[in-house]
Amino acid sequence: MTLDPSDPRDPRLGRRDFLQVSAAGALLCTIGGERVVVGRRGDAAKADAAAARVARPRAAGPTEQQTFATPEPQPGGRKVEYWIQATTTRWTIVPSRRDDWHDVAVPGNSTFRATVYQLMTDGFAAPLGPPAIPGPTLHAEVGDTIVVHLRNALTDLKQAITIHPHGVKYNPEYDGVYIGRYTRAGGFVAPGEEFTYTWECVPESVGAWPYHDHGPNHTLNTMRGMFGALIVRPKGEDVPAVEHVLFMHQLQPPVTGLKRAYQCFNGRAYAGNTPIITARVGQEVALYAIGMDNNFHDFHIHGHRWRDASGAFVDTPGVGPNETAAVRFVEDNPGRWLYHCHVFSHQDAGMAGWYLVE
Amino acid sequence: MTLDPSDPRDPRLGRRDFLQVSAAGALLCTIGGERVVVGRRGDAAKADAAAARVARPRAAGPTEQQTFATPEPQPGGRKVEYWIQATTTRWTIVPSRRDDWHDVAVPGNSTFRATVYQLMTDGFAAPLGPPAIPGPTLHAEVGDTIVVHLRNALTDLKQAITIHPHGVKYNPEYDGVYIGRYTRAGGFVAPGEEFTYTWECVPESVGAWPYHDHGPNHTLNTMRGMFGALIVRPKGEDVPAVEHVLFMHQLQPPVTGLKRAYQCFNGRAYAGNTPIITARVGQEVALYAIGMDNNFHDFHIHGHRWRDASGAFVDTPGVGPNETAAVRFVEDNPGRWLYHCHVFSHQDAGMAGWYLVE
Amino acid sequence: MTLDPSDPRDPRLGRRDFLQVSAAGALLCTIGGERVVVGRRGDAAKADAAAARVARPRAAGPTEQQTFATPEPQPGGRKVEYWIQATTTRWTIVPSRRDDWHDVAVPGNSTFRATVYQLMTDGFAAPLGPPAIPGPTLHAEVGDTIVVHLRNALTDLKQAITIHPHGVKYNPEYDGVYIGRYTRAGGFVAPGEEFTYTWECVPESVGAWPYHDHGPNHTLNTMRGMFGALIVRPKGEDVPAVEHVLFMHQLQPPVTGLKRAYQCFNGRAYAGNTPIITARVGQEVALYAIGMDNNFHDFHIHGHRWRDASGAFVDTPGVGPNETAAVRFVEDNPGRWLYHCHVFSHQDAGMAGWYLVE
Repeated sequence: MTLDPSDPRDPRLGRRDFLQVSAAGALLCTIGGERVVVGRRGDAAKADAAAARVARPRAAGPTEQQTFATPEPQPGGRKVEYWIQATTTRWTIVPSRRDDWHDVAVPGNSTFRATVYQLMTDGFAAPLGPPAIPGPTLHAEVGDTIVVHLRNALTDLKQAITIHPHGVKYNPEYDGVYIGRYTRAGGFVAPGEEFTYTWECVPESVGAWPYHDHGPNHTLNTMRGMFGALIVRPKGEDVPAVEHVLFMHQLQPPVTGLKRAYQCFNGRAYAGNTPIITARVGQEVALYAIGMDNNFHDFHIHGHRWRDASGAFVDTPGVGPNETAAVRFVEDNPGRWLYHCHVFSHQDAGMAGWYLVE
Repeated sequence: MTLDPSDPRDPRLGRRDFLQVSAAGALLCTIGGERVVVGRRGDAAKADAAAARVARPRAAGPTEQQTFATPEPQPGGRKVEYWIQATTTRWTIVPSRRDDWHDVAVPGNSTFRATVYQLMTDGFAAPLGPPAIPGPTLHAEVGDTIVVHLRNALTDLKQAITIHPHGVKYNPEYDGVYIGRYTRAGGFVAPGEEFTYTWECVPESVGAWPYHDHGPNHTLNTMRGMFGALIVRPKGEDVPAVEHVLFMHQLQPPVTGLKRAYQCFNGRAYAGNTPIITARVGQEVALYAIGMDNNFHDFHIHGHRWRDASGAFVDTPGVGPNETAAVRFVEDNPGRWLYHCHVFSHQDAGMAGWYLVE
Repeated sequence: MTLDPSDPRDPRLGRRDFLQVSAAGALLCTIGGERVVVGRRGDAAKADAAAARVARPRAAGPTEQQTFATPEPQPGGRKVEYWIQATTTRWTIVPSRRDDWHDVAVPGNSTFRATVYQLMTDGFAAPLGPPAIPGPTLHAEVGDTIVVHLRNALTDLKQAITIHPHGVKYNPEYDGVYIGRYTRAGGFVAPGEEFTYTWECVPESVGAWPYHDHGPNHTLNTMRGMFGALIVRPKGEDVPAVEHVLFMHQLQPPVTGLKRAYQCFNGRAYAGNTPIITARVGQEVALYAIGMDNNFHDFHIHGHRWRDASGAFVDTPGVGPNETAAVRFVEDNPGRWLYHCHVFSHQDAGMAGWYLVE
């Protein structure tokens, strides 16, 4: 019995599943006065159409008339600038069409139109790399400000977007959230527009955090790729020799229009397609697993264990949506290792990858 | 209605979606020898009827013949007394009929019959406020006893109820749990009856904890509002200037009889209806997010981050059923902020609110 | 498309259950080039047939040609040896056919063919006890090696299996994982074969950890019982007077072939069938709750609370798949207590038991 497990014609599915790989994933989106269920292939287009109809809000009320100064770096701190554009891209979830773990083909089309954040050179002069899931990882230290120039290049989708960061400090001007009539400029960046966010790296910003769209169509946009990470270090701290952010998330049919769901690390599914992480014995390794869907995950890496923030030894920490599990150890165990979500049905649907140690 | 809840011939089951906003949430309740599936509007009445048939258990066995002394406060401690009655009330989930976040109407009837704990004056003389979700927050210090006089005023539902607390210490007499033939008096408080619980605040009781019904029909009663919180502080510790308990839970059609599910904070859904929390710069803020349904949640508040108990910096901690995420910071960021569950489908179905800082 | 997302007339909705007790739980298994959905009673046989067709991989590539020395105990450490065979057994989930909590019959057949790890005497001479869920708990100290001689006695199921441990250190030879063409000997132990694993107990191995099958059919095998625990203590540390491992997991119809799902502790459902834990006042108690399915759980025990690793006081910690919640306290509260998962639908479907304190 070899079949596409999420084929909607399979009478065994479209019922309940513990699998979380079915075709029946549904999102509820409230978009500018319309409530849209994204529950079937094709519904994403309806959500996009609703998002295109959202008018720019006029901020109202005493709170919203407050003004806020743009923060400056602390003495000795830097202003770390990024130019990022929101764009769409054809994204392939399983480029190799194989699962290296089980040494087996993964048939079927896995290419869809993703919405992503793309890193650009200064002044948006040129791309600094192809558009990808996730967006660029932003780096700063305590005392710095992170300045993100966002350009909405989603001309085809014709909807406002934002960047909402976690972990850093920001005033309401730079929250990057659409909140109806209370929305500020940074919460509604329309197609063709630009907005500059300034965020402060305070002492309690230390860590790795997600950022994501929080505009009128944020749930759908986030679910199809508009997210990335930022890492804030204590001032002067060395960067670990090996450092990776690993987003744990599902790409599901109502969002992608594809015939099946994929459980992903960084927009890719199945070992050989997900990030191949390499390290050498003696190197300091930092991996940040971040949840970015509606599910809870468990990040496991074979051959390794480490202290969590509480001092307990762990090898399979839980990770909820927009939570980060920080994995830090000094590498001491050469070989080919599997990393994967330990929710069995996630690992079996693609949420796994290779970690190779010389 | 006694059936196999997973019989595939049962048309109410064998279906599922990822949305967690659908009409068909189902609970399995084992009530006095009957197994009841609460899976459709109307089924709650069947569970209530089954609960009304549960006879008072006669405690049996050597363990149950043990007697336990009522604990006294520690030297210097107080006896903190509360009078609480269990009652039903018409409860409206979206009083404004609007979602302030998206500035949009939330149509449809959202009023149902909730079961709640209501705070009364001494001796049950009069209500100290309207019946509400959640019940009253109880406050005590280490060394105190909390004495709760419970009256079952659920004359319409004709079923026994209890109060089962978390965090505090209690002997089996005051566990407040129905356990069949092992049940003690506090585990079966019939309609019209009263029972007095005495709980000890020991050093490891420090924190914010839920309490809830744990009688024969506990799952249904808890799911429709019979819960509240207790906060135990170290002796002499100041109360934070801003302190709120935020229950994260779903009110679903089989339980409410309504046409749709709502994702709630404190029995209310959508910003403007959920608690509007206010604070001033410089104030100490303590928020306690507590899970109170079958789902796992992630509590996020814009513009803020804090140390968790492990010392890690977080802004989106996970919260399971009856778990508490303690959020404590000194306010330093004026503005209008959103707080919400970061499970995207929960936030979009109402689990969001305003936090306003002057 | 603006609609009430939970309108029961919407054919896409009006489905789902929060119950997690339905018949239609489905697993996706990728088995030796075949993708098998285990979503109905009977499908497990198809997965087993696919697993029986998986050929022994020939390791390939430079990484796989590396050889690894078998680790020795640290000076002063021991080599702790276990003989374990993988076998099938008829396993009854509710032997008493009763739920002691609610004092009610649990009708229906609950016996199925489980795959388990069985502890044997030295050299596999004889069983050291009946085959059971979970497998034997392995005990060692920091500095020891744990040496497990595994025999695949699954002659009826005709498929390769492994043991993959958590927490301990091992080189790739002893990872116990099937990874297609990169598989080493310990990752494919065919029926009738034996393999000896050697794992190191390093300082950060302290704690209680799961082990489980990680062969070609690992998800199905784990879901039907092939798991156990290992406990590593600091050198010379006393064993707590009361120490138990409690696996929290579901046994579901597609896996068991039974008519309904059961929410279990250690392969058993409903109080009186799940482990009855006993302790005396003054004893040191250590309970290790470990998740072993696709769900997240919350472990609660009445009458008790404790410090978690972060120093916070808890009584209902969350537990994800293959995560461990360590519960440690000195017993001070005599009586009959309930322990249970605090996901309401899990506790009501069997995930509960007795803790009795003299």
